[in-house]
Amino acid sequence: MIKQLTIIGVGLIGGSLARALREAGVVDEVVGGGRDAAHLQRAQALGVITRYTTDLAAAVQGADMVLLAVPVGAMEVVLRAIAPQLPADAVLTDAGSTKGSVIAAAQRVFGALPAGFVPGHPIAGTENSGVEASFAELYRGRRVILTPTTASSAEAVERVRAMWQATGAEVMEMDAEHHDHVLAATSHLPHLLAFGLVDTLAKMGDKQEIFAYAAGGFRDFTRIASSDPQMWRDICVHNEPALLALLDRFEVDLKRLREAIANGDGGYLLEVFSHAKAARDRFCDEN
Amino acid sequence: MIKQLTIIGVGLIGGSLARALREAGVVDEVVGGGRDAAHLQRAQALGVITRYTTDLAAAVQGADMVLLAVPVGAMEVVLRAIAPQLPADAVLTDAGSTKGSVIAAAQRVFGALPAGFVPGHPIAGTENSGVEASFAELYRGRRVILTPTTASSAEAVERVRAMWQATGAEVMEMDAEHHDHVLAATSHLPHLLAFGLVDTLAKMGDKQEIFAYAAGGFRDFTRIASSDPQMWRDICVHNEPALLALLDRFEVDLKRLREAIANGDGGYLLEVFSHAKAARDRFCDEN
Repeated sequence: MIKQLTIIGVGLIGGSLARALREAGVVDEVVGGGRDAAHLQRAQALGVITRYTTDLAAAVQGADMVLLAVPVGAMEVVLRAIAPQLPADAVLTDAGSTKGSVIAAAQRVFGALPAGFVPGHPIAGTENSGVEASFAELYRGRRVILTPTTASSAEAVERVRAMWQATGAEVMEMDAEHHDHVLAATSHLPHLLAFGLVDTLAKMGDKQEIFAYAAGGFRDFTRIASSDPQMWRDICVHNEPALLALLDRFEVDLKRLREAIANGDGGYLLEVFSHAKAARDRFCDEN
Repeated sequence: MIKQLTIIGVGLIGGSLARALREAGVVDEVVGGGRDAAHLQRAQALGVITRYTTDLAAAVQGADMVLLAVPVGAMEVVLRAIAPQLPADAVLTDAGSTKGSVIAAAQRVFGALPAGFVPGHPIAGTENSGVEASFAELYRGRRVILTPTTASSAEAVERVRAMWQATGAEVMEMDAEHHDHVLAATSHLPHLLAFGLVDTLAKMGDKQEIFAYAAGGFRDFTRIASSDPQMWRDICVHNEPALLALLDRFEVDLKRLREAIANGDGGYLLEVFSHAKAARDRFCDEN
C-alpha cells in the first residue's frame, strides 16, 4: 500500500501508472508535480491525480513513493529540485529510457546513492503522449525493468516491484549497463536509423515523389520516426556509449553488405537475409 | 479484352492478377507456366488458371498478353526460354521489383527491344506468398508503375495499362532509372537496413535476451526482415547502382548523426529528428 505517491511529470507514463494504481486500490493519494499548472489541472480534472503543485520540492513532501516520469534530459534538474525535501524513508524511482545516465545524475546530486533509490524503466508506450492519452491498462502484460544500484535496499526494490506488479506488469531486474545495451539494440538504434533514413530521403530533391510511392513496408519501418524528437534526442545523448558501440557494429556489417552488393555476391546476401529472417521469425513470433 | 493471358510464375502476384481479371470478365483464358507442376496444378484446382504447362515456350504460344511474375533474378532465363515462341503481336510485361535490370536482360535476349515489351511493377504484396495467398482485390487502389522503353509501342502500353486498371489499380508511368531510384529509397534500402540490423543483433552473444525485450516499435521496424530472402537478394543485386548510391548518402548522414551523439550535440540531433518526423507525418499520413 502506498500512502502518497508523488509523480513528477504527469504524462502518458506517469498518468497511466496513477490510473492503474488507483484502480487497483493500492494508493491513497497521488500528488502531481511539474512545470505546467494548466497541464496538471487537466490531470486533476481527469481524476488522474488528487492534487498538484508546480513546486517540485513541495510535491515530494510527505511522499512514501516518488516516480520521476520526465525525459531523461530533465532528470538531473528534477533530482536537484526535489533532493532537499525528499523524505528520508521515501522510495524514489523513475521511468527513464536510459538507466546509466539517471544513476550518474543521482550520484552527482546526492553524492552517495540513497538506499531508497531504485531506477526503473517500463517498456510500454503508445504513439500518443500526454495525460489525456493515459489509461490504466497500459502496463498490463508489459515488462518493467528495474536496475537497482549497489546502494538500493532490498526493501525499496521490493516496494517498487510491488507497485509495478499492481499494474499487471511483469517486473524483472538487471544491471543498468546491461539495460542500456539491450535497449540500445532493440529501441535506440532502430529509432536512430528510422529518423536518419527519413531525413536522408526528405533532403532529396524528389522527396514528394519518393514518399508518394511508399507502400506498407515503408510505413511500418518508419513509424518510429514519428516519435517525439526531443525525447529521442535526450535518449541518444544519454545512452551514448551503448548506442555508439552498437552503431559501430552495425556500420561494419552494413559495409560488408555494401561490398557484397557491389561485387554481386548474392551468396553472402542470401546468408545474411536468411539469418535475419530466421531470427526475427523466431523471436518476434507474430502474424 | 485479353484472349489468352499467359502468366509465368503463378504466385501471389500472378495469381492475384488472374483472379482480378477473371472476376472483371476481361480475360478468356489464363495459361500458367512454371517449373513446378504440382504448384501449377494447385493453381488450376483453385480456379486461378485455366490450364498450365511446365514448358515455358509452349506456355506463351497463342498468347496476346504475357506477364512474367518471377523473381528478378530469373527474368533473363525465362525470357530466353519464351523468346522463340513468343507471338509477334503479343504484349509482354513483367511484375519485377527492379526495372533497369529486366530491360537489360530483354536487350541481351532479344537484341533490339520488342515494341510489345512494356516493363511494369505493381506496388502491392502481403507478407504471404504463393498462389494460395492470392486474391482478386490485391491491386485495388494500389499503384502500378509502367516503365515503357523507347521501343515500346503506344498500343502495347495502352493494353498493359488497361489490364492493370481492370484490377482496380492506379497506373502511372516513369522511366526505368527513376523507378529504380524511387524504389531503392522507399523499399530496397529499408529492407537492407532491416535485414542488416536484425542480423547484427542476432550475431550477438546475448541475442535471446535482446530480442526478449523487443517491444512494438522494434516489431514494426523489423517486420520487413521477415520477407523472402531470395527475392531480396535478387532485388539488391539487380538494383545495385541505385541502391548503392542511396546507401552511400545514408551512410554519410549516419556518420554525422554518430558525430553528434559522440559530441553531445543535441541541437543537431533535434534538428534531424524533427525534420524526419515532420516529413513522415506529412507524407505517410495515418493514425
